[in-house]
Amino acid sequence: MDALEAMRSYIGKEFDRSPSPFMRWLRPVVVSVEKGSLEFKYVIRKEWLNPMDRLHGGVTAAIVDDVLGATMFSLDEPFHYTTINNTIDYFSVAQENDEITAKTKIIKKGRQFIHAECEIWGRNGTRLIARGTSNLFKTQIKK
Amino acid sequence: MDALEAMRSYIGKEFDRSPSPFMRWLRPVVVSVEKGSLEFKYVIRKEWLNPMDRLHGGVTAAIVDDVLGATMFSLDEPFHYTTINNTIDYFSVAQENDEITAKTKIIKKGRQFIHAECEIWGRNGTRLIARGTSNLFKTQIKK
Amino acid sequence: MDALEAMRSYIGKEFDRSPSPFMRWLRPVVVSVEKGSLEFKYVIRKEWLNPMDRLHGGVTAAIVDDVLGATMFSLDEPFHYTTINNTIDYFSVAQENDEITAKTKIIKKGRQFIHAECEIWGRNGTRLIARGTSNLFKTQIKK
Amino acid sequence: MDALEAMRSYIGKEFDRSPSPFMRWLRPVVVSVEKGSLEFKYVIRKEWLNPMDRLHGGVTAAIVDDVLGATMFSLDEPFHYTTINNTIDYFSVAQENDEITAKTKIIKKGRQFIHAECEIWGRNGTRLIARGTSNLFKTQIKK
Repeated sequence: MDALEAMRSYIGKEFDRSPSPFMRWLRPVVVSVEKGSLEFKYVIRKEWLNPMDRLHGGVTAAIVDDVLGATMFSLDEPFHYTTINNTIDYFSVAQENDEITAKTKIIKKGRQFIHAECEIWGRNGTRLIARGTSNLFKTQIKK
Repeated sequence: MDALEAMRSYIGKEFDRSPSPFMRWLRPVVVSVEKGSLEFKYVIRKEWLNPMDRLHGGVTAAIVDDVLGATMFSLDEPFHYTTINNTIDYFSVAQENDEITAKTKIIKKGRQFIHAECEIWGRNGTRLIARGTSNLFKTQIKK
Repeated sequence: MDALEAMRSYIGKEFDRSPSPFMRWLRPVVVSVEKGSLEFKYVIRKEWLNPMDRLHGGVTAAIVDDVLGATMFSLDEPFHYTTINNTIDYFSVAQENDEITAKTKIIKKGRQFIHAECEIWGRNGTRLIARGTSNLFKTQIKK
Repeated sequence: MDALEAMRSYIGKEFDRSPSPFMRWLRPVVVSVEKGSLEFKYVIRKEWLNPMDRLHGGVTAAIVDDVLGATMFSLDEPFHYTTINNTIDYFSVAQENDEITAKTKIIKKGRQFIHAECEIWGRNGTRLIARGTSNLFKTQIKK
């Protein structure tokens, strides 16, 4: 089973067999899986909060980076991608027990580089909490 | 005791009474505390790893965001700062049990905005793992 | 006549009465003007080239910043916006005499901040050359 | 004469034989040239202004991108570097006829990627106007 199919088998469930220990800590529930476009949802836990009891920007950034990395796996290419950089812009707050959704898409796929975007939505997809992008580079490391 | 003094009282120790639940999860040990410049160190735990068993970029990004936020507290100003954006550039890998250090400084402090930088170093400060910056905005929310 | 109407009066023509000397140097032709979304086109001139005779990234960045600023004018708000930061990601090259198009949209409009995006397209809108975003802050400077 | 020596021969003079048409338009005066670190100065011209008669952020961004590209030439390596992305953060304004200085340095040089920074200073190096960074990739295109 390739990575795309493996992720698809978790639709509606927590992706608790991710090969990434940190992704397992984030406990994403897989909502949809397309080649180059994922949708994962998360419940904000107490340990994700900042000193003002809102979703910590560091966790938002971590989710953005993580789900963009998973988006590269969804391409089912033989080589690993490495992240060159992330940018994250913050727009709204969220609170403990809120459900948030991360949605990714590929903006540009070149021969060696991919530029991809991740939006983090709250309130059932009606409030944009943050948006991030990454540039990723195709390594020569085989999966 | 102001926030600067509170952080200084943890020099050499884990900052386990941070008001931020997520910072407590990161378990920083306070190395040095100056107004506008912090140094925290961390030990890479298993749950911080990516699928290739290296430090997950999302955790690096989270640390950058977190310690830049703490740097605002070190200013002992009456108002909260909110993060507008982060950028993180990745340079090197690190592994489980490695010790990494985050060092921050303020690049520009204006009347309403602060631009600050955080470097993540490994191998006893000889290898730059990542570097991030944030733009932060002084809110009217009192601490 | 408000700024939106003023820009609309240039549709199909060079915006040669822009209040911005640098925008006049870029010689945009106005393609479409909506509140919060502009489309301008440009012809790549010899003085816009890099040492390899391709469109210089600095000119691309300048166009991104300029047309995002103009997008703020299209909102017809009483106050000026100032740019906090730009990010620009580069994907493809372009050459002298090529026509390129800049298309903007607002991603998030808050009370004090706007996050907006600009794409630069070549080959009749079929090749994404670059994409940039800005965070802009509503000042108290009246227009 | 290699590129480093060629740039050095312009110290104190306008770099009017740059191989880049756009750099020639910017009319930098070379202040100092080291391997991986340049200092260029510029006089703000009327055509560089925004609608408020201040230095246009797009010109600042263009200078950042341009002088970071020139910094790659100063390395005297056999291959061209291409810019993956720029980030520019804006801090202060400047006016017509002001002299501004761009100073670059390399933050991290890897086998394939370079991360470099450019600061734009005004008022004789006492006011930070803007700061930018780029990730650059070593191509296989020979110079």
